[in-house]
Parts: sequence; C-alpha cells; structure tokens
Amino acid sequence: MVEYVVPAPKRRRGRPRAGQSDARERILTAAMDEFGELGYDGATMRGIAGRAGVDAALVHHYFGTKADLFGETVGAPMRPDLAIIEILAGPRDEVGNRIVRYLLETWEDADVRRRGVALLRTTIGNKLTTPLLAGFISRELLARIVRALDVQDAELRAALVASQVAGLLIARYVLRLPALGEASVDELVRRVGPTVQGYLYGS
Amino acid sequence: MVEYVVPAPKRRRGRPRAGQSDARERILTAAMDEFGELGYDGATMRGIAGRAGVDAALVHHYFGTKADLFGETVGAPMRPDLAIIEILAGPRDEVGNRIVRYLLETWEDADVRRRGVALLRTTIGNKLTTPLLAGFISRELLARIVRALDVQDAELRAALVASQVAGLLIARYVLRLPALGEASVDELVRRVGPTVQGYLYGS
Repeated sequence: MVEYVVPAPKRRRGRPRAGQSDARERILTAAMDEFGELGYDGATMRGIAGRAGVDAALVHHYFGTKADLFGETVGAPMRPDLAIIEILAGPRDEVGNRIVRYLLETWEDADVRRRGVALLRTTIGNKLTTPLLAGFISRELLARIVRALDVQDAELRAALVASQVAGLLIARYVLRLPALGEASVDELVRRVGPTVQGYLYGS
Repeated sequence: MVEYVVPAPKRRRGRPRAGQSDARERILTAAMDEFGELGYDGATMRGIAGRAGVDAALVHHYFGTKADLFGETVGAPMRPDLAIIEILAGPRDEVGNRIVRYLLETWEDADVRRRGVALLRTTIGNKLTTPLLAGFISRELLARIVRALDVQDAELRAALVASQVAGLLIARYVLRLPALGEASVDELVRRVGPTVQGYLYGS
C-alpha cells in the first residue's frame, strides 16, 4: 500500500530569508578578509564576527567551527579534516590505504575534482593564499595525525604523508600525467597506500 | 713569483653583439609563443625558427636541443632532464636515493629555489602553462625512466616517482610545512629515497 506523506514545508535552497542571508554573506566576506590577512592560524571567529558586525555566537551558529567556516569560505569540495578522524580511529595497519582510498574515491566525483583542482591551482599559484592552505593542512590534518602517532618524529612523518598525498593529487588531476590518469583507484591504493603507511609507522 | 696573465678579451655578459642579440631574443619570444600555443610535445624547432624568421639551424646553434631551448625559455633553474641520465646510469640500488638527493641538494641554492618555486607556482597556477610542464616532465624525464626500466608497468612507476618528487618539492618549498623545512637533506633522502626506489623497482 502506498503511504502518502505530506512533506514539511522546506525553505528553497539558496533562498534563505533576507536578513539571515545578509548576515551569512557578511560573515563569509569577513571570513575571506580575515583568513586572507591573518592566515588560517591567525584568524579567529571573534575577529571574523567583529568584521561582519555580528556576535561571535552567530558565526558559530551558522558555520560551526573555524574549520567548517574555512571550508565554506574556500568552497572546499571535501572535508579531509573530518575524514582523517575516522580513518585514524580505524585499524592501524590499514591507515595508509584508507587515506589514499578516501582521497581518490572522493575525487572520482567530477564536481569535487573540478573544485579541488581549482583550489589547488589557486592556493599554489598565489603567494598570498598558499599559507592559508598550508595552515589548514597543518592545523586540521597534520596535527591530528601527530596526536594519533604520539612519537618524537611525528611531525616529520605527518608532513611526508602530506607530500605524497599532495603530489599524487597534483600529478593525477592537475598535471594529468597519463599513466596516473589511467590507473584505477584500487591500483593506486595498492601502490601508494604502503608508502603512506611506511611514513606513518615504518622504521 | 707572481705570474702576469693578460686575459683574453671577453664579451661582457648580457651584451652580445647587436645582430646576434636580436636573433636570440626573437627566437626566445618565438619559443615562448610556440610552447604556449602547442605545448611541449607539439612545439618544433622548425616552427619556432619560422616564427622568429630565422633558419632552424640557427636555433640549434644558439640553443641546442628542444629541451635546452625550453629550459632557457622558462628560465629553468636546473636541468633534471640531464641529471636523470647520469642518475640512471649509476648503481641501480641507489637510484631512488640519488634522485631525491639531486633534487634537494640543487634546491639548497637560494637562487635555484626561488626560481624553482616561481616556476612551480606559475605552471600549476595557470591552466595554460600546466600542460607545458607536464609535457616536459613526461617527455624528458619520465620517458627516460621508462626506457631504463623496460617493464610493462614502467609508465605508472615513473609517474608515481614524479608524484612523490613533485609533492616533496611543493610541500617543502611552496607550502613550507615546518617539519619538512627543518629536516636535513640526509634525513629526507633516508626517508623518501626508499619510496622512490620502491616505485621504480619494487614488487
């Protein structure tokens, strides 16, 4: 039997109420300015709120954490800072494979890929925005790996992972080296996963 | 006893004879146009000569091979295409280490580093110039590795090397992740050399 459900009235996407929309837009513009001027580490939610002329609580209410707001501001097509928490919580001997698989599978989506490539091009191509990407990577990704590793050379290990992972994304999706473009996700996980695993837990 | 040597008169650097200088400049401008429009693979010495209104032999006379001319055109701070020949001719179980050491030691020089970073930023940041870098890497570096490896999956192996090497340069010198900036060349060779070696010759 067919069940008839009357859906609750939904606000149409991209059409919030006028006042709300204004505040959101002002916060996003303020965030772009604050991140651009002070870098990822230097930017604060309070500073962004001040620039936007709203209360800091409203910034948190609309956007969540600083990482969430950064993701919105740069139009991040993925949230590796959230994924890494889950990946590190899983079986230790699969962490390398899972990092590589997560990235490649996420980038299989054409829209994610397009926006990801644009973001890489912009942040690497522009001296002013590079520290912003580097700050986000250090604070939201590498710091989590460092805490999970809890060894003396953890910072270097995490940074080596970043070097291979960034290089893989750039070589496959930006430089588009043919052999990497043609390789399947499984094949790349098989080849690159052990590298990442080795950087994390190898001798 | 002090020996007095009268030095042979030298032409001052950057001040070649007028006619020669004109032709060189015209060739460099033509090369930039040809590489920009047709990519590294599509560009020909004959085409560049035609644009410059000179004989192809003169282009070879002034600039050598297409790779040499490309290096001049983009102001390449190093010539990895020449280094890779020597590295591949050396002991096989040291190839990974030697590739990483060559790159890092070359980039220790502040001027090389500055120009290298600028070149990476430009080619990655600009959609039009990316294929130029990718074409040079494929034709002059990866093709040589592929020939030396002579196995079925050689293209993929060479491209994986490129991914790690490019990622290392970008993470250390462009993103400037602190742990990578602080690590010594020896330390990085010890950690990353085996990765490159594994991509080349591993199972």
